[in-house]
This record gives sequence, C-alpha cells and structure tokens, in this order.
Amino acid sequence: MPKKPAPLSCDWKTPEKTRKSVLRTRLYRHKGDFSWQGVKTEKYKSQDGTWAEVLRRVLVGTRGENTKFHLRYFEISPGGYTTLEHHRHEHVVVGIRGKGRCLVKGKNYDIGFLDVLYIPPDAPHQLKNPFKEPFGFFCLVDSKRDRPKPLKK
Amino acid sequence: MPKKPAPLSCDWKTPEKTRKSVLRTRLYRHKGDFSWQGVKTEKYKSQDGTWAEVLRRVLVGTRGENTKFHLRYFEISPGGYTTLEHHRHEHVVVGIRGKGRCLVKGKNYDIGFLDVLYIPPDAPHQLKNPFKEPFGFFCLVDSKRDRPKPLKK
Repeated sequence: MPKKPAPLSCDWKTPEKTRKSVLRTRLYRHKGDFSWQGVKTEKYKSQDGTWAEVLRRVLVGTRGENTKFHLRYFEISPGGYTTLEHHRHEHVVVGIRGKGRCLVKGKNYDIGFLDVLYIPPDAPHQLKNPFKEPFGFFCLVDSKRDRPKPLKK
Repeated sequence: MPKKPAPLSCDWKTPEKTRKSVLRTRLYRHKGDFSWQGVKTEKYKSQDGTWAEVLRRVLVGTRGENTKFHLRYFEISPGGYTTLEHHRHEHVVVGIRGKGRCLVKGKNYDIGFLDVLYIPPDAPHQLKNPFKEPFGFFCLVDSKRDRPKPLKK
C-alpha cells in the first residue's frame, strides 16, 4: 500500500471522534478583541508559501461536538491572503472585523461587517486583505469535507 | 396510514431539494441594520402562545445550497422570548446585536457580542431578552434535524 501523504493542513482533518461524555453546554466568551476564552489561536496552515498573515480560531467542531458543521474564525492582517484553492465543499463567509476581499471564480467581492458570502462547490477562491486594518471573518464548513486543492495564480 | 400532523414551524421543515443549477456564488450584503439584501424577515414560528417578539432571517440553507448546516439570524425584542423546548439536534448561538440570555438545562447564560454558546443534544433551552435593546444572534443548526418539542415552564 502506498503511504498516505502527510496532511498539509489541520483544516480538512477528520475531527476527533465524538465522545458523548463531552457533549455539554459550552460558552466561549468573546474577550472583546476577536479572541475567545478557551479557544486557542492557530496558524491557518503549515507554512507552504501559498498564504501569508492568516490566523485561525476554531470555535465549534473539534472538541467532540456532533454538529455536521464547523465554525471557525480567521483573521488576515493587512497585506495577507489565504491559499488560492478549490474543493467540493462549500464555504459560508461572514465578515466580522474590518473589511476584506474575496476572489471567487475570478470575481472580487468586498466583505464588510456581517456581509454573508456563499462560495459554491469547486469554485476557485482566495480571501485577501488589501486594507489597513485586520480582516476577521467566520468561515462555516461541513464537518466532513474534502481536502482543498491549491491552484497556481 | 395515519395522516401526518401539519408542521408547527418552518424551523424543522425539510429544505427544498437541492438544484445544482442554483449553486452559484451569492453575496448577501448587510444593510447595516441587521437585515440583509435578498433575505426576507419572517416570523420565528406560527403563533402558538409559546413565544413572543422574535423574528428570523434565514441567510443560508433554504435556497438550494448543499451545506449540511443552516445559518439563521434571530432577533428578540426587549421582553421577548423563544419557545422553551428540546430536541436531538445541537445549536450554536453567536451573539451579534445587543445582549440576551439563554436558559440551558435550568442555568442562565448571558450572551453578548460574539459570545459563542454550544447547546448540546436534548438540553431544554430558551432564548430571552430581558434587556432594553434588541437582542440579535446567529443560530447554526444541522440542515437535517429533528422537530423541536416544546416544554411547559
């Protein structure tokens, strides 16, 4: 059997097996600065040259919940960008902090506070921050999803 | 065959059948007042005496998307409350406008801007607004979910 390639990113890993014992009420209190009590700050992905200046905070989905979705917060510093990629699973992006830009199928969409962008299956997309303040957004995805495929610019 | 009871609420109805033709990029622009372009304002449920002063805006999940989740915005006016109920499916509540209170298994949690509350399966819960400004929140659920069961106070 050929060896499976190592995961590039924690983004598409199978979530930890659900343990019924941990299905309890949880409150992740917002600290007022787009971070949350009990939620760690992670790198968007392992460094691979396809992205810059992006952090992630996973709010729901990796602590044994049974939801069929994950709720994540991402933040892109001014000048930063995510990987230009595509995949079968859909994205729902909700602007939360500052403003940013999302390239989908070659078209740019500016995203401000509470703007909701639905990105359909297989659409090449990239989030960017060409502005002067941090751009923070929720990104909702199915918990079971395919691995993103990077694209050349 | 016994006749099925009529649905009490649009909350748990099976979403419209996915039509591949409608899986296109969509931007629901926030109008600045917690309403969105292209998203209608609905009643929380049909009037049944179990709730008061709640509106809903369904952002993602009922326009043919394939996501395994729905994103809804609810708003409770001062003095209002949702039905005290329970169900197998989980809730994720994210405070967006003002502040409110969520009763889960007999315990109250105050919810402010960007606080994230995970409500586990079968937990009796009710959202309330005992404050003076509207309380708006996102509520995330699985797209396939069981019908809520109301509880007596």
